[in-house]
Parts: sequence; structure tokens; C-alpha cells
Amino acid sequence: MAVRVGVLGATGAVGQRLIQLLDPHPEFEIAALTASDSSAGKTYRQAAKWRVEGPIPDDVAETTVSATDPDEVPDDVDLLFSSLPSSVGAEVEPDFCEAGYVMSSNSSNARMADDVPLVIPEVNAEHLDLLEVQRDERGWDGAMVKNPNCSTITFVPTLAALAEYGLESVHVATLQAVSGAGYDGVSSMEIIDNAIPYIGSEEDKLETESRKLLGEFDGAELSHNSVEVAASCNRIPTIDGHLENVWVETEDDLTPEDAADAMASYPSLELPSSPDQLIHVFDEPDRPQPRLDRTLGDGMAIAAGGLRESSFGLQYNCLAHNTIRGAAGASVLNGELLLENGYL
Amino acid sequence: MAVRVGVLGATGAVGQRLIQLLDPHPEFEIAALTASDSSAGKTYRQAAKWRVEGPIPDDVAETTVSATDPDEVPDDVDLLFSSLPSSVGAEVEPDFCEAGYVMSSNSSNARMADDVPLVIPEVNAEHLDLLEVQRDERGWDGAMVKNPNCSTITFVPTLAALAEYGLESVHVATLQAVSGAGYDGVSSMEIIDNAIPYIGSEEDKLETESRKLLGEFDGAELSHNSVEVAASCNRIPTIDGHLENVWVETEDDLTPEDAADAMASYPSLELPSSPDQLIHVFDEPDRPQPRLDRTLGDGMAIAAGGLRESSFGLQYNCLAHNTIRGAAGASVLNGELLLENGYL
Amino acid sequence: MAVRVGVLGATGAVGQRLIQLLDPHPEFEIAALTASDSSAGKTYRQAAKWRVEGPIPDDVAETTVSATDPDEVPDDVDLLFSSLPSSVGAEVEPDFCEAGYVMSSNSSNARMADDVPLVIPEVNAEHLDLLEVQRDERGWDGAMVKNPNCSTITFVPTLAALAEYGLESVHVATLQAVSGAGYDGVSSMEIIDNAIPYIGSEEDKLETESRKLLGEFDGAELSHNSVEVAASCNRIPTIDGHLENVWVETEDDLTPEDAADAMASYPSLELPSSPDQLIHVFDEPDRPQPRLDRTLGDGMAIAAGGLRESSFGLQYNCLAHNTIRGAAGASVLNGELLLENGYL
Amino acid sequence: MAVRVGVLGATGAVGQRLIQLLDPHPEFEIAALTASDSSAGKTYRQAAKWRVEGPIPDDVAETTVSATDPDEVPDDVDLLFSSLPSSVGAEVEPDFCEAGYVMSSNSSNARMADDVPLVIPEVNAEHLDLLEVQRDERGWDGAMVKNPNCSTITFVPTLAALAEYGLESVHVATLQAVSGAGYDGVSSMEIIDNAIPYIGSEEDKLETESRKLLGEFDGAELSHNSVEVAASCNRIPTIDGHLENVWVETEDDLTPEDAADAMASYPSLELPSSPDQLIHVFDEPDRPQPRLDRTLGDGMAIAAGGLRESSFGLQYNCLAHNTIRGAAGASVLNGELLLENGYL
Repeated sequence: MAVRVGVLGATGAVGQRLIQLLDPHPEFEIAALTASDSSAGKTYRQAAKWRVEGPIPDDVAETTVSATDPDEVPDDVDLLFSSLPSSVGAEVEPDFCEAGYVMSSNSSNARMADDVPLVIPEVNAEHLDLLEVQRDERGWDGAMVKNPNCSTITFVPTLAALAEYGLESVHVATLQAVSGAGYDGVSSMEIIDNAIPYIGSEEDKLETESRKLLGEFDGAELSHNSVEVAASCNRIPTIDGHLENVWVETEDDLTPEDAADAMASYPSLELPSSPDQLIHVFDEPDRPQPRLDRTLGDGMAIAAGGLRESSFGLQYNCLAHNTIRGAAGASVLNGELLLENGYL
Repeated sequence: MAVRVGVLGATGAVGQRLIQLLDPHPEFEIAALTASDSSAGKTYRQAAKWRVEGPIPDDVAETTVSATDPDEVPDDVDLLFSSLPSSVGAEVEPDFCEAGYVMSSNSSNARMADDVPLVIPEVNAEHLDLLEVQRDERGWDGAMVKNPNCSTITFVPTLAALAEYGLESVHVATLQAVSGAGYDGVSSMEIIDNAIPYIGSEEDKLETESRKLLGEFDGAELSHNSVEVAASCNRIPTIDGHLENVWVETEDDLTPEDAADAMASYPSLELPSSPDQLIHVFDEPDRPQPRLDRTLGDGMAIAAGGLRESSFGLQYNCLAHNTIRGAAGASVLNGELLLENGYL
Repeated sequence: MAVRVGVLGATGAVGQRLIQLLDPHPEFEIAALTASDSSAGKTYRQAAKWRVEGPIPDDVAETTVSATDPDEVPDDVDLLFSSLPSSVGAEVEPDFCEAGYVMSSNSSNARMADDVPLVIPEVNAEHLDLLEVQRDERGWDGAMVKNPNCSTITFVPTLAALAEYGLESVHVATLQAVSGAGYDGVSSMEIIDNAIPYIGSEEDKLETESRKLLGEFDGAELSHNSVEVAASCNRIPTIDGHLENVWVETEDDLTPEDAADAMASYPSLELPSSPDQLIHVFDEPDRPQPRLDRTLGDGMAIAAGGLRESSFGLQYNCLAHNTIRGAAGASVLNGELLLENGYL
Repeated sequence: MAVRVGVLGATGAVGQRLIQLLDPHPEFEIAALTASDSSAGKTYRQAAKWRVEGPIPDDVAETTVSATDPDEVPDDVDLLFSSLPSSVGAEVEPDFCEAGYVMSSNSSNARMADDVPLVIPEVNAEHLDLLEVQRDERGWDGAMVKNPNCSTITFVPTLAALAEYGLESVHVATLQAVSGAGYDGVSSMEIIDNAIPYIGSEEDKLETESRKLLGEFDGAELSHNSVEVAASCNRIPTIDGHLENVWVETEDDLTPEDAADAMASYPSLELPSSPDQLIHVFDEPDRPQPRLDRTLGDGMAIAAGGLRESSFGLQYNCLAHNTIRGAAGASVLNGELLLENGYL
């Protein structure tokens, strides 16, 4: 029997991707859609300016959108996906958890809180148990798990694959697609024939979220990984797919061949949205490329390539679809993990 | 009285920029144009598919193009600018020097040869004296000076400005414009809605040319700088302007404020093509940007910005117009330096 | 049992799309691949620079490519798809037909020949019978059917849907994607931040092919339609999907509502590659758009929108995926029609 | 002595272009800048997100911005340029004119009013005398002249050059740059790898403004031209420069050669911002192109090309820089015309 799910912030760019992924989902059934007060009472078709490929699923199109308020969401909804703007999320997400809802959230608020698990299932599924601490401390019946920022998700799985060599330092430069900023986030005059070497607070997210994701949970407390990360973030004129240049220094010797093996053999999971292979390693030095490789594993895989020695340890490139693996798909995968681990 | 100059490889993308810069030049007068054999005998208008902004200068348009052969260039030409493909350059440039011509070349062949000065006038004008060694060793009446690769020119002036702090290591990721590959170098299907994390042999150029440029010439021999450089090169969908993300570790403490002062006060020269200010330092964290800042100083200035502390020393971005400061303008500036230093 | 098919010119942009469509095809099985002499003897993986989304199908990747010569293609191949450059097609396609092969060709040569059927199955399937005339006249055991140019295919189905109103004159302006010119057809420097109001001989194709497609075949001779067509063709910076602005004047009164009904109800076929609905008519005035609507019906549907009255009859926009519906898919559909009509 | 001028709506995209053109202007001196109430009291540097090439002129940067209110603009300002949003313009422009200010406005409100001259100086300077009627009817000491929409300005000069042949019908399809919608008008997700076949109310502007511009003023009343115009407007991914495909049917026979002569010889004016040649006619069939040709005549010229016969009269393409010739430069030129005709 399908789990009844709701989407908070259903009309935005990530909300639309969530609907696209949840509508055909084998375990989940869309039972509630919320948006801002100005959309409440409208059908989804009226409320959303639908912009992803393909039409709005028929049944979703005629669903009435409600306000983003725990009182407006049916009690028999078992799982919420949140793609609220972070300022809104900071305000209302705790209300939902307090009202008893279990939530998988893509919003950036509270990601670094001590008692909020920040999870990429293939990397640190065991952090989910932090929810016990969370419920204890906050007195919630509900629960809140977060997925990291899209640019963080792109490179952390490759680091996790190399962790056994002892991560010491990471430099990462990102070439990020415009969809990461939402539908109206980057104007065309800003980015055509251009690049912008700055994305507000993005570098900090890569540097801190990666250390939390790669940290250890001892059942009571989460310690962050000690790897030093320095990020430089750029916006470029691509629609989807974040490409990243990475340099890693490790304690133990690490050849490009060792690294390729470690990445290619890094295990995926058996969750419905898991890709068959998590990390695809290309031999061709000019891959991965956003337009050609962002849809690997239906947008849920990571692509890596260009593994080579540099003056400072290993150097390589990696890529992920930022609104699927990096946002909506990440939240769905966390929802599947919550289900599998008995939190629903 | 104007110096009579010739352009080898005059019909290509860099050749066209050379003509655009040389036609109104106060010291130089275009007296010879060469191209491949198939163009020899045609007027420049017939031979070149002119693609830079504005029309072909009238007198240039009707000039007859000759083959790229020392016998076809008039003896009274005092200075040659070469923008030949490197394979052609490797073959014919030495013939011109042996025939007595002084040459400022943008072609990548021979840049790393021990007796060929690789020069950015504001950075290492004193390397020009290596020409004495060159003439001695090769028995040339002529001489050959090279400018570095466009991606190298973009970041080396900023490193030169910081050299007093003791350069130890540099990581650099480049976001390079398509014009760097020549008019037909990157197809539109390769790059629209895409990025390519690989440019053949480009990373090696940044790593080795920068050490030569920052090296010391003792009158007899050139020692390369010991700074370790690791580069990662990407092609993105911009027309002109290479943007680079740089991390620098130095022996001495270096704050972003110190670095900004050092860059902004780094001296320009009094050559005709020198910009008034060599390095513009932006306060706005989202600058420089290719489309907005590539024409600073008529395309001959360097722009820097986003100076900040990272986990590993200083971090910043820099930008230069790749076909002006990074290619044609670089060659013209070296030609002006040759004139000022009495080599013509 | 599957029909054994071959692809002539299998390594090019349209050839790659053909393989992508034929590999999972329910009726066809790839049994031969040809390319230029320099590729002959290599595996397809070695010979092709694969550039469409997703990997090369495994069995295709290891197939040995042969030269484009009737002697090199196995006799038990029943159907050939040709995506040869038109100059090559003009030379070798007749040799294959004379050798007994039945061919569905996308190449532009011979499209306007009196005895060559130019077919869009939903529009003029009955023209296929012209093959009897062709065999008679040429003494071929084989046969050759052509599909029209990608920009022609985009608007002709909408005209066919309106034909009952009496077509008098058509003005059409095209905004064409770069993939229409092949992988290296348009350089990035030509088209980024730009548009080119000219595509060699393209306007003539729209004007003449449309009249042939809309003509009548009386069993012996094909008479072209008398509608006057004036085309203006532009290349713009999109990857896939040709968008066209159309004005149509008709003998009978034609309201936008009538036109929408006629288009939406225009029948599709039951062939394996036929879309469920041939022409999708959008109510939103800003649709269709290439990026959002080119994959309708797996790239085999036509999208129309913006139907409105102008000073001169009806005005509207239409769109099709130029390398699927407009090229590879068009050829496959013609192959399916050949099979259904007993020509194999 | 310089005329003191003010800019209403000085912080927007067209306002920034106005400042760029007015700062070095030989006849005008910037004496007042207005913007929305939230900007009033700030320096221009603080109020404007400056986005055109090059820095803000120093003196302008430190000018204090005032509210857009006649009481806030000094009385000794002789001429106002307005680039207000049309809804704001409709409200406040009449107040300024009533308060005695003479205004050259780019805002779209009131363009079609019977007593408001809509002027392209080279086309219909004599319409300026309609200001007498305007002052009579409205009792204004001030006066208001409008320039047309950017897409209208692009093709009307070419029609004016052909008017002697008797204009009967015009079909025009536009490929418009994103800057025409203002800095935030088109999001990058809307337009990268895409085109949009709709711009709200734009087609109506081309159809009605062109007839007014080509009309005749008999000293009392303005009669619109009877030419029928049908427009189809598209947005494409270019930064600046509107490209248009035009078909014209005329009463008298008109060959492409006649048309080229008529366009190339159509006179420019002697105003400071007039280009030396108004219409450049290209022989190359693939010109004009936005990126290569938009800066002809410092962005104030019109480019035409591709003149050829169609099934329906003459066919050609034309291009203009939409924010210079099509907006800010158009207003400045009208200001110069007002000065020359003694209205200041």
C-alpha cells in the first residue's frame, strides 16, 4: 500500500521536479500540495507555472493547493517533502515536525544543526539514527532529515569513495547550472556570454556540509570530518548539471587508477530511486560534460572523469544533475530511506 | 617614422585581431600579410573570412596576401608578428629568424626553449636580454620572442604582484572562452548548454609557462621559479574572456587586503598598448565577469576580484580578454618592447 | 521476425540518431553499418564520435563498420537507411537501389526527382506508389523513398491539416537549431549571442518540397500543389528543435478556432514510431518552445500554438524536433511504411 | 552652453544607456536623475545596479537621485529623457509636461495618442510640429515627444526608404534580444537553448506604430499610412540587437537592386547622434548578424541584407541595436531634434 506524501512548496522549480519524480513512484502517492497563501485554493494547474519537460500529471493538475500550514495538511499524510525557500522553511518546518509529520527537506535551513541528520543515503545512511537524539531533544513526534546543497552532493560521493586513503585537503571549483538558483534566480542578461564567479554562501555550504556528511555518528553525537575544504563557486550558462574540478590530497598514496577503482566500485543502494551504479568513471579525458552526462541513471548517478596526478595529489572532475540528484531526487531518496528504516 | 611590420598567419582569428590592433597603431605600419599557400595572391578581403567587430581596414582589405615564406616578405619589413598554427610555426618561424627578421610570436611552439624569451612586458621585460644568448647560439641575425598562452597571461600578472610574499603553491581552475580555440575550434553542438572539462595540453602550459615567466635571468641563463602550479582547464559558452579561480599559498602571511594593494599598485608600462592600470581590483565579490569586464583598458588590463581567505591561503578570481591581452595584444606589446629596447 | 536493416553514413549526427531509434525498434534489427573508407574495418565504437545522450548500444558498439559500397553490405539486409552527405548520396544511393536494396533516405539529393516519392507518412503515404513508376523507369529491383528537409517537415503537417480550406499563400520564417547543420556545421563563435539570417539553399527546400508533399499522385504522375510559399530561414543558438512562424491565406474563411480543430484532429498513423497525437495545439500563446516541447511524442509529434488572425489570414507557430521527427525519425517512419505496404 | 537635462527612471536598463550616451554628449549636461521613491536620496552609485560596459561616469556616480516628481526636479532643467516603466510613465509624464518640462520619452504609454508625435528623426521629423496641436489641446507649457518601440525602429527606416514604390503589405518576423525586456525581463531558464514565440503586445506595436510613423501630418492632423503590417515576434538568446525578416509588397515594381540603392542612399541627418550612414546594405547573404553588426554607427545605424525576390515581392533582413538605436539613442536623437527645432 502506497505511503501518502505531501509536497511543501510544490509550485517552485524543485517542487515541480518532486512532483515529476513522485507521480510515478512505486511507494509514494501524492496526497497534499502546499504553496504560498496566494496560491491556496487554486488547482495546481492554476497555481504553478509548469516548466519541466512533459505535461503536469493529470491527477496532480486538478489537486487543490493548500496553504503551507500544518492545519491545512491531512493527518493521514505520512511523509512530507519540503522544497520551501529557506527563510520560509526555517519558520514553518519545525511546526510540521512538532505536529507529528516526518519530513525529508531540501531547504537549506537547519542543515548544520547538531541534531538534524544531513544525509546522502549511499554515503552516510547511519546518520539517520540521529533522529532519536532529535526527537529526544525537541520533543517531536515528527522528524526532519535534510539533504545537502546540490553542489555538495556532486562531489561528496567521490570523496566518500576515497575516504579509506585518508582525506587531508580538498580544493574544489564549481561550474554550476542556472537551474540551481530557481526559475527566476539568474536573469538571461546576467549569464548569456558570461560567467559569474560568485554564488552567495555557496562556498561555505560545500566546505561545511561535506565535513558533516563525512563525519561519524557514535549513537549520541556527530563528529565532523577533519578534511579541509576550500571551494570556489561559479555560475555558467548551462541549464542543468553542476560540473566540479577537484584536487584531493590524501594521507596514503593514491594513484588515479586506485581512485577510479574506488569510485567505480563504491556501492549504490537498493532503494527505488537508487541508480544501478552510483559513480560512473569515464576514461575519456573530456568527460563528464553537463549536457551529455547529467541524465546518467535517470539523473541520480554521479559522473567522474579526468582522473590524473597533479603537483598536489589527485585531480579529477565530477558532475551530477543538480535538480534531480542534487535536490528533488535527493529528497525522494531520503524519503525512501526513512521508509526502509521504519520511520513512517 | 613608422616601423614596417608583417603579419604571419594573417587570416586566422588571432591574425584578424592583430590587424585590428596594428592598423591604427602609432608606431607600426602593416607592410606584409602572409597566409597559407591557398590564399597567396588573393587580396586580404578575398582570403580572410573577417569575423571581428567592425569592417576590414580599407588599405588592408586590398593588400595582396603572400605565402608564409621568407622569400615572399619584403626585406624592408622590420618586425614580424606571428599567429601561425603551432605546427606551421615550428617549421617556418626559425627560417624567418635565420633570414634576419625579428619576430614577436603568439604561436605555442618553442615557448619553453631555453634560449627563447617568453615575455609579458610588465612581468619580466628583463628576460628579453636572453635574445643575446639566442643569437649567439643559433647564429641568427633575427630574433624570436614569444608571449605565453592566453590562460597563462590571465593569472601570471596577479602572481607577479604577490611574488614578494614568496609563492609556494598555486591551484588554478579556468573557465575559458571559445575564441581561445580559434574560429572553428569549438562547435556549437559541443558547447551550448554545456561545459567541457578538458583543453588539450592547456593545463601543462599554465603550469610550465608560469614558472618560466616568474623565473630569473642572470645574463646567461634563465632559472625557472620553484612555485608548484596545478591547473584544471574548462571550456564554457562565452565568446571572449578567460575567467580563473586561483588559490595561492605564500611563505609570508598575506591578507586579502595586502593582496589587493599589491595587485592594484603593480606597475604598468609606458608602451603604446599598455593599459593605464594593469590590474583592476574589484570590491564587488561577483566581479570580474567576462562580458562586463573583458574590455577594461581596451582589452589589455587584467581584472581581479573576490579576494578572500581560504583554508589554504589566499583565494581570488582573475580575468583577461583572451584574444587581446591573451594573444594579439600580447604580441603587439612584445613588439613595442622590442622597439623600445633597440632590437629593431 | 525482425527485418534486417543497414545504416549508410552511420557515424554522422543523423546516423547516430538512427542507431538510437533502430536499436530498440520492434520490427527492425541493425545488421550493417557503413561509413567513409577511413572508418571501414573499425568497430563502431572506434569509428564514431558518439554524441547523443546515453551510451552506444552494446551490440552496435562492437559491430564492424564497412565501406559505403553495395558489395560490402550483406545481401540479406532488407532495408537501408541513408544519412549520407548529399554529394555522397547522389553518387552511391542509386548503386544500392540498382543492386536491389530498398532504401529510406534522409539525404537531400534526388528529393525533387519526378519518380522519387518524397513522403511524410501522415501527409502523403499514397505517394509511395510512385515507386512503381520509379522501378519501371530506372529498371531497379530496389527502391528509393526520401523524407523531406527538417524545416519542411515542421510546417507541412500543419498545412496539410488546413488543406481543405484551400491553401493560397504561405509566408514562413524559421528559427532553426544548430544540430540541423550536423555536429560541426555551426561553430560556437558563429552563433553564441548571435543569429544568422541565412542557411544555404534551405529556403528553396521549404518552398519546393512543401508543394511536392502537398501534391496529388494520379497513379502515373505527381502534380505539385499550387500554393505559393515564401520562406526566410534563420539559425539561432538552440541545440534541437526548429521553431517556425507561419502566415497562411486560404480560399475559404478560416478562423483560429477552425484551424486549431483541424490540426488537433489531424490523424496520426498506427506505425510503430507514430506519435499518439500528430499535432499538439497549445492554448498558451508563448508555446511551443524548443526546449520545452521538442520531445512531445518522443520527438515525433508536431507542436503548434499562437493561432491568431492577422491582417493576412491565419498566423501561428509550429515546432518539431529536427533530428528526430525532422530527420532520423522521419526515415524510420518511412521504413515502417515501406514494410507495411509490402515493399520489403 | 550645454542644455541641462534630466533622466526619469535613471536606474533601469534604458536609464543606464541614457547616462552612458548623455555623459559625453556635446550639447547636453546631466543635471537631474530620478528613480523610484526607494532610491530617492541615495547617490546614483548606491541606487543603480550598473550593468552596461565600462564604469559609471564619476560625476554621475555621486549625483543624488531624487523621486520622480516634478517638484523634485530643478526648474532650470530644460529637457527630460524618460525611460519609466509605461505604467509609471502614464501616470507621471503628463504632470511633468504640465509643469512646463519638455520631454523625450521612450516609455510606451501615449505613443499612439493623436496629439503625441511619435518620431524617428530621419523618417518623420516633420511630425514634431504636432507639438503645437498638443500644447493647444492640453494647455501645456511643456511638450512630449515619443520614440517608437525598439522592434519598430529596426524595420521602419527600411520601409521609409522604399515608400516611393508604394507600400502595400508587410510581413515581419522578429528575432529579439533579451535586453529588450530589461535587466530582469527574461530569466536564463526561459531562454538558454530555447526561443519564445511571443512577446506581450509587441506585435501590435510593430503593426500600429509603423503606420503612424509613415503617416502624413498636414499641419492639423496626422493620418496614418495605409500599409497593412502583420508581425510575428520571437525572443531568442542574444544579448543585444534585434534581427528582423521582412517581406514587402509594393504597388510599383521593386527589384532587390532598386531596394538596395534606395536603402543605401536614404539620408541620415546632421544631429550629433546621427550615424554617418543610416542604412548599411550588406552584399553577403548571411549578414546582418546581431553580434557582428549591432554596433555599426556606434549602435545608431540600421543594417540590412539578404535582399532577394520572393513569391510575394521583396524579401530582406534588417537589424538594429535595440537599447541604443531602439531605445536610449532614439530618445537622445529626439532630444537633439527638439533642440534644433527650437523647442527648448
